[in-house]
Amino acid sequence: MKSPICSMLGIEFPLLAFSHCRDVVAAVSRAGGFGVLGATAHSPETLEQELKWIDDHVDGKPYGIDVLIPENISTAGEKDVTWKSLERRITPEHRDFTKTLLKKYGVDLRITEVPADQPQPFDGETALRLLDVSFRHPIRLIANALGVPPKAMIEMGKAHGVPVAALVGAKEHAIRQVAAGVDILVAQGTEAGGHCGEVSTMVLVPEVIKAIKPIRSVPVLAAGGIMTGKQMAACMAMGAAGAWTGSVWLATTESETSEIFREKMIAASSRDAIRSKGRTGKPARQLRSVWTDAWDRGPDSPGALPMPLQSLISRDAFASIDRSAAAGNAQARDLVSYFVGQGVGLIDSVRSAGAVVQEFKEDFAEAAEHLSVLVSE
Amino acid sequence: MKSPICSMLGIEFPLLAFSHCRDVVAAVSRAGGFGVLGATAHSPETLEQELKWIDDHVDGKPYGIDVLIPENISTAGEKDVTWKSLERRITPEHRDFTKTLLKKYGVDLRITEVPADQPQPFDGETALRLLDVSFRHPIRLIANALGVPPKAMIEMGKAHGVPVAALVGAKEHAIRQVAAGVDILVAQGTEAGGHCGEVSTMVLVPEVIKAIKPIRSVPVLAAGGIMTGKQMAACMAMGAAGAWTGSVWLATTESETSEIFREKMIAASSRDAIRSKGRTGKPARQLRSVWTDAWDRGPDSPGALPMPLQSLISRDAFASIDRSAAAGNAQARDLVSYFVGQGVGLIDSVRSAGAVVQEFKEDFAEAAEHLSVLVSE
Repeated sequence: MKSPICSMLGIEFPLLAFSHCRDVVAAVSRAGGFGVLGATAHSPETLEQELKWIDDHVDGKPYGIDVLIPENISTAGEKDVTWKSLERRITPEHRDFTKTLLKKYGVDLRITEVPADQPQPFDGETALRLLDVSFRHPIRLIANALGVPPKAMIEMGKAHGVPVAALVGAKEHAIRQVAAGVDILVAQGTEAGGHCGEVSTMVLVPEVIKAIKPIRSVPVLAAGGIMTGKQMAACMAMGAAGAWTGSVWLATTESETSEIFREKMIAASSRDAIRSKGRTGKPARQLRSVWTDAWDRGPDSPGALPMPLQSLISRDAFASIDRSAAAGNAQARDLVSYFVGQGVGLIDSVRSAGAVVQEFKEDFAEAAEHLSVLVSE
Repeated sequence: MKSPICSMLGIEFPLLAFSHCRDVVAAVSRAGGFGVLGATAHSPETLEQELKWIDDHVDGKPYGIDVLIPENISTAGEKDVTWKSLERRITPEHRDFTKTLLKKYGVDLRITEVPADQPQPFDGETALRLLDVSFRHPIRLIANALGVPPKAMIEMGKAHGVPVAALVGAKEHAIRQVAAGVDILVAQGTEAGGHCGEVSTMVLVPEVIKAIKPIRSVPVLAAGGIMTGKQMAACMAMGAAGAWTGSVWLATTESETSEIFREKMIAASSRDAIRSKGRTGKPARQLRSVWTDAWDRGPDSPGALPMPLQSLISRDAFASIDRSAAAGNAQARDLVSYFVGQGVGLIDSVRSAGAVVQEFKEDFAEAAEHLSVLVSE
């Protein structure tokens, strides 16, 4: 396939795969898609290891990285915020609620000890250090969600000749991003897993394309709910330059997901992927579980804390939950959850990432052929 | 275009247009689409007049009707419920809240007097009488939203050789509808105007197609957010048999919408179409206004009453609001609202219904051609 985005990224099939798992990133790129590693959870040191591994396993194919630098965060403007200093802001009420909830399902909450100087999650400075590490590798894309990327990120991209992509959930955000100088937009519908807005992919994609047209020519990738090549073709029929996907890779053999979460994905319907503040403090789509029920509508819920505090709570909680569930505690299963989009309703098996890319290509071609036949008859 | 749905409905382009306005229905069918008249607000007498008018203006082209028979309604199982008897169930608190809200915007609430024996809205018996009237006309489709159609409706359809369609917002509902014997499914995403579920069109369409495949071959129309031929092509790339549309017709010269509402639609973005119980008591997507804000999150909101009571409240209220706004009360404008989907963000002008159908056809062909070129390069 020939298109501006394909030239920009050095690929032939504009299927982008966001994953926290290096194995998925390398496998997708090798198969002809474009893997994007979620780098936010890493320190500069561990990110260096991951990218080295990808370089060794990607057969010279292009890939990218994604860092999460939230524009709006409760610690905005504060200096020297550490993980430790944030921990002290979690109220005893929230700690107790979490502990009691987990206890009810037979899970002991274990708090992970972190070094005193460890920076807070989603820290702008740390993110720029992650970018420094990344530019020592042959990355072909840097992406950011949750707001306009910091100016330094856009400038680093330009200096290295690497396009900068930004995720948007509303046309108003798209206009701001284009004005800020991003090279690629990812129009992400409400059906997407993780942080998401309220507008559906079917509406958002043409709305964003229309809104930015008078400003500057920027390729728009469609995101949200895309699990098959037919849906990818659907988005490109509406003018999208390609597809940005996430949830579909959670059900691959290479992914980081647990066996229990995989079983829950296969059993789930689209309505089980709900939008909740229970995991990060911002609305994010995730698999409904007794965790989300308790935070969202439990009669004694203290309400989610703002980002990044709620992420601190849930990081320890889900580490404890997953450990307990994996050890055979059947009750813990009811708490198990992870970010996933409404597309979870289309998951019915776990396959290799390479096989998924191949099926995307076949389904895409089939959908195009189907439309072509309809028009000609 | 040749397909099972085209043969079933006697059309060449499977673009279905739901409208409460006979002019839109006739214009769409004349232009090669398929108009569907929303019949619920009518008495058998006024429906007879409408259908007679359509027959006189549709040039022999096929059209259908839609009746709203909610499966779940607060008056279910009760006999001889009249409009009058329902009015007595509206609490003084709800009356006062409405009156005070309108007063604040300079609108006097006028209660419409109805005959003592007028049946309640959404009454099953009345709906069957509407169907009786309809079958005296050459209708080619009867559709129902909000649950499985009554058995009598499906039987009447079969007896007259007229396909019965049902709107669904979740895969579980689709399975029940197919088991009940409907001939056509309309998979309607959360972005749709009016009563809607939570799953997006992008996910719901393939999820429904996949779920019913092992049961019975039933054509699935896509609905929710579809305002252009490119989006229609997108849905058909995913396997939909065609498109069911609503909001796009509100911005046509033939439609029933007021000048003020048209201006508000053109100014709106997709995020202004919100899901609220404020109009009917069930979640329905509509243009956000101070009416929806007041009911949904006003500090003194008594909360929406269940269907059909909230519809009684809003019917009188919006008649008063629209009258006042049309008479030049600028404040009343802030209250003006109507059912509309997220696709409102794509509306930028008012055109004739015939021109809209024509543009759908052109955009559809263009989208198919675009995909075909992408695949071949």
